[in-house]
Amino acid sequence: MVEATQGRSTGLPGEKRPRAQGAELIFTGDELLRGDIVNTNQAYLGERLLNAGLFVTHALSVTDDLELIGGALREAASRRPAVLVVSGGLGPTADDLTREAIELAFNRELALSEALLDSIRRRFQDLGVHMAETNRKQALLPRGATAIPLVGTAPGFWFEEGPTLVVALPGVPSELQRMWEDTVEPLLRMREATGLAPGVVVRRLQLYGIGESSLADVLSDLPWKSGTAEIGTRAGLEGITLVLRSAPTPEGRARIATLASEIRARLGDKVYGENGVPLADVVGGLLTERGLTAVTAESCTGGLVAKKLTDTPGSSTYFLGGVITYSNELKESLLGVDRRDLQCYGAVSEQVASAMAAGVRESLGADCAIATTGIAGPGGGTAQKPVGLVWIATDVRGIIDARKYTMFRTRAEIRERTAHTALDLLRRRLLALT
Amino acid sequence: MVEATQGRSTGLPGEKRPRAQGAELIFTGDELLRGDIVNTNQAYLGERLLNAGLFVTHALSVTDDLELIGGALREAASRRPAVLVVSGGLGPTADDLTREAIELAFNRELALSEALLDSIRRRFQDLGVHMAETNRKQALLPRGATAIPLVGTAPGFWFEEGPTLVVALPGVPSELQRMWEDTVEPLLRMREATGLAPGVVVRRLQLYGIGESSLADVLSDLPWKSGTAEIGTRAGLEGITLVLRSAPTPEGRARIATLASEIRARLGDKVYGENGVPLADVVGGLLTERGLTAVTAESCTGGLVAKKLTDTPGSSTYFLGGVITYSNELKESLLGVDRRDLQCYGAVSEQVASAMAAGVRESLGADCAIATTGIAGPGGGTAQKPVGLVWIATDVRGIIDARKYTMFRTRAEIRERTAHTALDLLRRRLLALT
Repeated sequence: MVEATQGRSTGLPGEKRPRAQGAELIFTGDELLRGDIVNTNQAYLGERLLNAGLFVTHALSVTDDLELIGGALREAASRRPAVLVVSGGLGPTADDLTREAIELAFNRELALSEALLDSIRRRFQDLGVHMAETNRKQALLPRGATAIPLVGTAPGFWFEEGPTLVVALPGVPSELQRMWEDTVEPLLRMREATGLAPGVVVRRLQLYGIGESSLADVLSDLPWKSGTAEIGTRAGLEGITLVLRSAPTPEGRARIATLASEIRARLGDKVYGENGVPLADVVGGLLTERGLTAVTAESCTGGLVAKKLTDTPGSSTYFLGGVITYSNELKESLLGVDRRDLQCYGAVSEQVASAMAAGVRESLGADCAIATTGIAGPGGGTAQKPVGLVWIATDVRGIIDARKYTMFRTRAEIRERTAHTALDLLRRRLLALT
Repeated sequence: MVEATQGRSTGLPGEKRPRAQGAELIFTGDELLRGDIVNTNQAYLGERLLNAGLFVTHALSVTDDLELIGGALREAASRRPAVLVVSGGLGPTADDLTREAIELAFNRELALSEALLDSIRRRFQDLGVHMAETNRKQALLPRGATAIPLVGTAPGFWFEEGPTLVVALPGVPSELQRMWEDTVEPLLRMREATGLAPGVVVRRLQLYGIGESSLADVLSDLPWKSGTAEIGTRAGLEGITLVLRSAPTPEGRARIATLASEIRARLGDKVYGENGVPLADVVGGLLTERGLTAVTAESCTGGLVAKKLTDTPGSSTYFLGGVITYSNELKESLLGVDRRDLQCYGAVSEQVASAMAAGVRESLGADCAIATTGIAGPGGGTAQKPVGLVWIATDVRGIIDARKYTMFRTRAEIRERTAHTALDLLRRRLLALT
């Protein structure tokens, strides 16, 4: 069942989450329900809340309709979550209804906050923009609410409704994140001190070059769930992430540290990083440590390997450049690939991948090179060389290593997997240097 | 208020949606609530349902808990939507609870469907995988439900609950989409014939090189909402999309056609495509039509322009390759940029961008070239040349056009905007060829 778990997170069968410490999210905005945008705020808040010890049980997107938003707020509050976040609908237009929905749902009349109005006015002055009369509406606060320091011009605020901390935040992701990290998380920590919500210790180990079933075999005897710690997995195009979580107790922390060491010992160089570092950054770090430079020669990935390497700020210190040789002619003229190799073995072959790596390293004058050549599809495949066939070569100071892969599914996935696999190959070669 | 509308869709102020024809979505899966993955199924279904004339009012993600899923189903059905889609929780594990939740919520006992079991068994045989005993669970159907033809090994089914068509689909996006398009949409059309849900005609015009406020000025006198049609906008890194929608009546269709012609007449070559075509595909189409080839020379975009061009299947017919010259030495040695220009004007200058375009076109032997050089940040900016300063040059058969831009925000955004702007510049140059 690899197919079914691809790209999703697997928990522990039959695992039960405690419901008392749950959180709920409500997102307003027709754009979320029309398919105009994907709701990234949900994933952001889900992860941040979990790290704070609060498991989200319900995340609802609801249309810009006063009664429906009000109904959703009442319904969520009736389940008595520890935290209820409502995002969006705090702007100045007639579609921005969150304030009024809170008034309706919780019977908290709105009143103009002069302090908030001043902040908003100053914000417009800083932007050199005239504040329209309609923006006054943004300074309305429900009774008992405390304003969160402004980030953009849309306000945020919080109040206590029975056992629930209700937090209202703008829908713009950068503003939501800033308010969350600067104001709401400190607030949650304060409440934690009073015994409300225990935090969770999270450590993420990132793996490349091992499948989910082999991983399950290698780690099968580990306690995937014990009293104080648990292991989860999540698979994607950038490999597998093992998520270790524990209670923030001394025993929990010790458990996580022991588990991480044990997993690292068993998996060796298959662990490429921790806590969200991109693979290309790890490669960049190894190049920097060793004082080496790198270049790329790409066919099927068409620039994607170089793009990933240059996603990292400061990559110009070790990445000199690269060539994209989509045509056979350029493989010959730019990289010195032998025409007979192209004719005998074809562009997707060990010989050509190796010649591309050696050619780009020499002609661009670097210590290391990565080369990719393959059939990304959907067209161009044959019985001998089907779509997904890829050769990747690395050249580290003249020593060439070429490997064959069969990548799967769509053109975009084949290209992504090829780029990550190429970066991972160079990473292992660099680790093996002594 | 450009900031606040960035990346979101703007509707019409105070617009009211009819509620009788609404749809609701329920997604199960802890991975959606832990922030492990972003829910792309919601945007997909929202858009497809809207195109079928059904506006989604509620989209809920709920944790893998039998009672909570059951409660969510009951709550949604009580609002009597025309369609209720529940996605996920149809696999074989103990966490897959959608079937049982439907049994609980709607009092429809589960029974094994021998026909469905046979299909699942054949699917495993085709995959060459042994079907485990636990997979029998996947052949359980609620009373009155009809199975949807299998795509993977997770089943889907539908049934009528009062006025509501309830559809259960797997959570894997490719399986969900296949079942939706192959089975559910034909089902909706059949129901439409019986008067249930009128469809909507949608046409999307994609623009580049115009800001939201200029756009509002140019189109201010158009009827953004009339009885039979409406215009919406959505902004992103790939420009602005104008979404025209109307009822599927002869008048509605005529209105949309007139609006689209009028907008195209006013905006000219700022409209680069329709209905989701990537900008790089449009450039590829123009190159193909004119029988021209193209190459790239990239500094700040580090391969992103070439990557976008090669996202298109079959791009090898017009894209020969490119170079990434991150270092000044490679700008000289690979592209023949004059060292004095690099010293006098710096790498981010009109002179160097122009020399890169001319150099790559000549040395790689193509008709057209794109070159980018800029400061992507976050480091490397100065008072004269701040982060975000970018020069882009095109060379079409020896005629060079270099332009200066100030791109904004993060490194990733600066690089994306630069790549799109470069592709758009070449597009306009190609359109201007006679």
